[in-house]
Amino acid sequence: MTITTVGLDADDTLWHNETLFRLSHKRFLELLAPHAAPEHLEARLAETEKRNLRLYGYGVKGFTLSMIETAMDLTDGEVPTRVIREILAVGREMLNEPVEPLPGVEHALARLSERFRLVLVTKGDLLHQEQKLAASGLGDLFAAVEIVSEKDRGTYERVFARHGSGADQAVMAGNSVRSDIIPALEAGAWAALIPYPLVWAHEAADAPHDHPRYRELASIAELPDWLNEIA
Amino acid sequence: MTITTVGLDADDTLWHNETLFRLSHKRFLELLAPHAAPEHLEARLAETEKRNLRLYGYGVKGFTLSMIETAMDLTDGEVPTRVIREILAVGREMLNEPVEPLPGVEHALARLSERFRLVLVTKGDLLHQEQKLAASGLGDLFAAVEIVSEKDRGTYERVFARHGSGADQAVMAGNSVRSDIIPALEAGAWAALIPYPLVWAHEAADAPHDHPRYRELASIAELPDWLNEIA
Repeated sequence: MTITTVGLDADDTLWHNETLFRLSHKRFLELLAPHAAPEHLEARLAETEKRNLRLYGYGVKGFTLSMIETAMDLTDGEVPTRVIREILAVGREMLNEPVEPLPGVEHALARLSERFRLVLVTKGDLLHQEQKLAASGLGDLFAAVEIVSEKDRGTYERVFARHGSGADQAVMAGNSVRSDIIPALEAGAWAALIPYPLVWAHEAADAPHDHPRYRELASIAELPDWLNEIA
Repeated sequence: MTITTVGLDADDTLWHNETLFRLSHKRFLELLAPHAAPEHLEARLAETEKRNLRLYGYGVKGFTLSMIETAMDLTDGEVPTRVIREILAVGREMLNEPVEPLPGVEHALARLSERFRLVLVTKGDLLHQEQKLAASGLGDLFAAVEIVSEKDRGTYERVFARHGSGADQAVMAGNSVRSDIIPALEAGAWAALIPYPLVWAHEAADAPHDHPRYRELASIAELPDWLNEIA
């Protein structure tokens, strides 16, 4: 097989993200603790996020708006304004959070970039994702960056046609079966799952274990060797 | 001159946008009227928006968060929660607003697309801008769409290199001197100002009237003829 291009997911593949969201959830539950039980709060926040996804898309700004909306709904509008201020602060802190590449990422990307075109493919807020890439210091290793509103089969077909030599000569690597693996396989690419300890409920899905172009890796450090194997 | 590519701004060039923001400002002032005078409210909201631009970028979600933050600041945290609900609703309505091309846009783009590669170049929330383009019915006329976090010289150099034959064979058309005209001229492109009756304060700037590659047009309907003139 000829492989020319490697697509890489960003959040929870190159750097922590879900951990931050979980910490923010935790602060949200604490703030609203006088008004509702944690399980109830979590369930309502998840509902609100899911309902708003169509309108807000992925990212911290939409998440912040959904936290505010949930706080309103759960307190019958009797939420102390201090809580709203705190929620705004949680969102701002998430946007300001320093970005640190996950262990092994820099070394693996440096090896990969010697032989392949690397393309970052990520969802989320446009400006925030650009800022995280800049802060990570990994920007120069990528030949292209695609921040997209949804990761489906068409997304991967377009991205690998534009920045490589088509999906059938590309590998996508990421932590989400639903966003990084299944649609990339559908587009005709190879796909490597690099698990992250936490998965956002919205992204959960079963891995296609028997697919001939799929591999689950223990970490990103194994990606260059798998590519040697298939290339 | 050989011109191969035409870049077009979206908000307030292809469809209304600032009008919607002004209407939302008006609703914000009405909601907060019991707490502060309109001029004071406007000034504080503008300050908050400007301060948050670095963090939130352009678009409705950041604007909604800035309205909520301003409401908090101006009422010493004593804002009725009903007001917060209303602000969230204002943001959602902006995101749901139907999109209608401005007069003359469809006809002008159809003419232009016969001879040039059309590229949409716009700031704002990624998902929302994609949705507006889809809703406008204009999507098929564009060879490429670039939703960017900032419009500066480098943006136009990149966009016209990627989707055309370089900035010196490209024309950028839009309503903002600061975002569509000056940086496009700096990149080496031609630039046509298509004024919109309202300009967001942040985008205000003096037009470079004497620049040899600049023209102010009365409407987008004049763009094809200007291109014939220079091509």
